[in-house]
Amino acid sequence: MSRADLGRAFLASRLAREAPGVAPDPLAFLDARADAQASVVTVCPLAELPRWRLDAHRLAHDTGRFFTIEGLAVETTFGAVPRWEQPIIRQPEIGILGFLAQRAPEGGPLRLLCQAKMEPGNRGVVQLAPTVQATPSNYLRVHGGLATPYLEHFLPATRARVLVDLLLSEQGSRYLHKRNRNLVVELPPEVPVPVAPDFAWLTLGQVGDLLAVGGRVNMNARTVLACAHVAADDAARAALLAAPPGGDPFRAAVLASRLHAPADPDGELRAALSWLADEKARHRLDARPVPLSALPAWRVDDGGALCHESGRFFRVIGVTVADARREVGAWGQPMIQPAHDGVVAFLCQRRRGVLEVLVQARVEPGLLDAVELAPTLQLAPGDYAGGAPLPPLAEHLAAPPERVRLRAPQSEDGGRFYHDDKEHLVVELPEDEPLAAPPGFRWMTLALLERLVACGGYLVGVEARSLLACLA
Amino acid sequence: MSRADLGRAFLASRLAREAPGVAPDPLAFLDARADAQASVVTVCPLAELPRWRLDAHRLAHDTGRFFTIEGLAVETTFGAVPRWEQPIIRQPEIGILGFLAQRAPEGGPLRLLCQAKMEPGNRGVVQLAPTVQATPSNYLRVHGGLATPYLEHFLPATRARVLVDLLLSEQGSRYLHKRNRNLVVELPPEVPVPVAPDFAWLTLGQVGDLLAVGGRVNMNARTVLACAHVAADDAARAALLAAPPGGDPFRAAVLASRLHAPADPDGELRAALSWLADEKARHRLDARPVPLSALPAWRVDDGGALCHESGRFFRVIGVTVADARREVGAWGQPMIQPAHDGVVAFLCQRRRGVLEVLVQARVEPGLLDAVELAPTLQLAPGDYAGGAPLPPLAEHLAAPPERVRLRAPQSEDGGRFYHDDKEHLVVELPEDEPLAAPPGFRWMTLALLERLVACGGYLVGVEARSLLACLA
Repeated sequence: MSRADLGRAFLASRLAREAPGVAPDPLAFLDARADAQASVVTVCPLAELPRWRLDAHRLAHDTGRFFTIEGLAVETTFGAVPRWEQPIIRQPEIGILGFLAQRAPEGGPLRLLCQAKMEPGNRGVVQLAPTVQATPSNYLRVHGGLATPYLEHFLPATRARVLVDLLLSEQGSRYLHKRNRNLVVELPPEVPVPVAPDFAWLTLGQVGDLLAVGGRVNMNARTVLACAHVAADDAARAALLAAPPGGDPFRAAVLASRLHAPADPDGELRAALSWLADEKARHRLDARPVPLSALPAWRVDDGGALCHESGRFFRVIGVTVADARREVGAWGQPMIQPAHDGVVAFLCQRRRGVLEVLVQARVEPGLLDAVELAPTLQLAPGDYAGGAPLPPLAEHLAAPPERVRLRAPQSEDGGRFYHDDKEHLVVELPEDEPLAAPPGFRWMTLALLERLVACGGYLVGVEARSLLACLA
Repeated sequence: MSRADLGRAFLASRLAREAPGVAPDPLAFLDARADAQASVVTVCPLAELPRWRLDAHRLAHDTGRFFTIEGLAVETTFGAVPRWEQPIIRQPEIGILGFLAQRAPEGGPLRLLCQAKMEPGNRGVVQLAPTVQATPSNYLRVHGGLATPYLEHFLPATRARVLVDLLLSEQGSRYLHKRNRNLVVELPPEVPVPVAPDFAWLTLGQVGDLLAVGGRVNMNARTVLACAHVAADDAARAALLAAPPGGDPFRAAVLASRLHAPADPDGELRAALSWLADEKARHRLDARPVPLSALPAWRVDDGGALCHESGRFFRVIGVTVADARREVGAWGQPMIQPAHDGVVAFLCQRRRGVLEVLVQARVEPGLLDAVELAPTLQLAPGDYAGGAPLPPLAEHLAAPPERVRLRAPQSEDGGRFYHDDKEHLVVELPEDEPLAAPPGFRWMTLALLERLVACGGYLVGVEARSLLACLA
C-alpha cells in the first residue's frame, strides 16, 4: 500500500464523525465504563510496597521484571544546568501500543477499535486507550493475570495488514532509553470482530473531538494517533482550502499544513535531518547509570517517597491499587508524581501562506540518541520559582486569548505517572509579526513533522507527538 | 534534489573510470604518499602510555576527551551466551566522515575528493580515506594540532549542497553507542578547490576498483560509500541488463539488484521495518556500564595489555606513534587488537530473477537500539576453537571457489583497531537450490538494503555497510 493511499484512508477517517457500527457518543461510551472499572488507589511509602524492594542500587520488583528505578548522572552542554543526578525509570523491553482498524462490511471510512481504560495515575476518569497496550511483562503474563484481548492481531505470526509500525520514544526526562512500538493494523472488512464490553469502534474524527475535550484520550493513544498521517497531497489540499470542514479557519489551516506538498520533498526532508544532525553534534550528553545511593540531592522523605531536597522536579511514590477489572486483582507499584504542573506548547504561524509550527531540538538525558524534536516550550513553570531564568519564548505562555488556538490538559501515561496532567497549548502568532527561529529551533509544516515521525528512528519526542495528535 | 536525481548522479559516477581531473591510477596515488607518511608504531604497556591513566573505573586521557575504555555487563536472550562482561570503547561525541564531491567545470560525472591516509592500526599501508574524518576532539583541536583541511565544507554555516547526511553506528561489539555522521557534500563546478598533496579526485567507479583490491579503502570511507545510493529505477535497470558494464554477469546482477524497483516500494519497506521491529521485540538486551575492575574474566597480562583470561576475543593494548605528518607530532593511545582474524560474509542468491542478500538481525551490546542488520555471517572462527558450536550457515565459509564472488581483506578503523583485517566474502548460492531464511534472517534486494541505510536511525550495522560498499 503506497503512502499516498494510506494517507487518503486516514484523511477520510479524520473527516468522518459517522460510520457504520461506531459508538455515536464517544464521551458517553467512556463514562459508561467508569463504574465497571472503579478502583481504589492509595499512596503508600516505597518501603511498604508489596514485592518491591528499595536498596542502595535500585527500586525493583522481586521478579526483576516490569521496570526498575535507578540513578542517572548527567553531564551536558545543553541548557542552563551542566550536570545533575536524578532517578530514572529503566525498562529495557518494547511495549506494544496498537490500534486495530477496520472498514465496516458495508463500506465507509476506517474505524479504530478503542478501549476505555482506567489507570491508577489518572484522576478518577476512564480514558480512551489503544486496542492493546501491553509490555512483554504483561502479555507474557509474568504476573499471572488474564490474557490481553486482541493481542493476537499485533503478533508477527497472526498480524493482518500493517498500516503503521514505528518504534518511538517515551519521555526522555523520566525513562532511560524507553521505546514503544506504535502500531495500526487493518483487518479485512469481512472478518468478524467481537467487540468486548470495554471496547468501541470510532473514526479518527470522533477521537479528534475527544482530544479537544482534554483529559480523555490517554498518552498511549495520542502517540499512535500522531502516526496516522494524511500524506502530502496538493489536490486534497486545494479541495479542503476551498471548502474547509466545519468552517473553522484554524482547523482548515492545520489540515492544509498536514497536506502541504513542497516542490522538493526529498530535499526538504534531507535539510531538516541535516539540521537535526547539526544539533546532535553541537551538544554533548554523557549520561551514566549510577546507584540510587549516588544521588546526593535525593532522599526518602517522611512520607516514604524519594524526592529532591529542593522539593522541585518530581517524587517517586508508592501506590497500591485494588481493582477487580485489571489483569490482576490488586497490586502495588512505584509511580512518578510531578512536583508542579507542566505545560507543552507549540508556537505556530502562517509563513508564506502555510501554517508552520516552531519545533525545538531538545537534549533529554534518557533519550536513546540524546536529542529529539520537542514542542516550542516544554516545562513546569513551578520548577523555576526560585528565580531561575525561564527558557526562550516562555513569554508566549501568557499569550492573549485571541492568539490561543488550543488549550486542554492531557495526562501522561497513568500506568507510570501519578496525577500528571500537562497543559497542551497552541498559540498562533499573527502573520505580519514574523518570528525568526532562535538557535536550536526550526519552523516546520505539519506535513514535514509527520514525515519525520514516519522516519522512525527516534526523531520526534513524545511531547511533540502528543501535541501533533491534538492538532486534529 | 529528488532521490531519483541523486541516484542518477551516483550511478553515472559508479560507471565511470575516467573523468576530467581525476587521478589516472588510484593505487599509484596511494603508494606515492606512503613515504611522506612514514611512521613508527610501537606497542607498549597500557601503564606506560603518556597522558593515559588506567584505574579501577576506566582507561582515560588526562584531558577527559577523545575516548575512554570502560566495562560493560551484558545480559541478553540473543545467541548462545546469556551473560558476559567486557571492556568497551566509550566516545559520546559525533565524528564527521565526509567526502567532498564536485563535477569538473567541463562536465562529466561526480568526483570524490579522496585522502591518502596512514593510520597506526594499519599494516604499513596508506589507505584511501574520506576528505575529512574528524571527531570534535580533533577538529576543535583539543590536542593543539593542525587545522583539519577541508573541514569548513562540512560545517553548518559553510556547507554547500548536502547529498548524503546520515548518522550511522560503528561496531556494536566494541563501541558503546558510537555514531558517526556520514556526509557527501557537493560543491558547484565553478568553485575552485585546491587539491592538497595527500588528496586526489576519483570517481565512484575508480574507488570500486580499489575496493576489489582489498585493504586499500579504509572503514570510514567504506561506510560513507555505502550511502552513495543509486535509486531504484526500472528504466536504468533494463538498459544495464541489456548491456552489462564490463560484461561480468555477477557485477551486472549486483547493479540490477541495486536498481530493483518493486511494485509497492512503501509496502516493501514497511514490511522489512516490521520484521526488524519484531526482531527487536523478540530479544532482550540489558547492557550496563560497570567499572573495569568489575570484569572478572579480564586482567592485565605480562605485556601490560588488558585481555580475557581465555586469550579469546580481543586485547586492549597501548601504542605510541611517531609521525611527522599527523596533526600532532607524536602520541600514545590505547588500541583494540583482535585475538583472531575475523570474517564477514553475505550469502546471496538470485530469487525470482533478482539477486538478493541474506541479512541477519543481530544483537550487539553497544548498539544504541540493541539490534541492527548484519551480514549473513560475522565472526572470528578462532574464538570457537574450544569446541563451541559455530553460528547457523557457517558451513558456507568453506564454499567451493566457483560460488565465491568476492573475497578480499578489509581493515577496521586503523585509528582504534590494531592489525584488524576482516575477510570480506560474498558467496552466491545456485538459483536452483533455494535457501529459506532461518529465523532472524531475511532475504533482501540491494535496493531495499540501501533504502534501509538511507532511513538513518541505526538500522544497518557497519559490517553490512562495509560489505555493501564492496559490492561495487
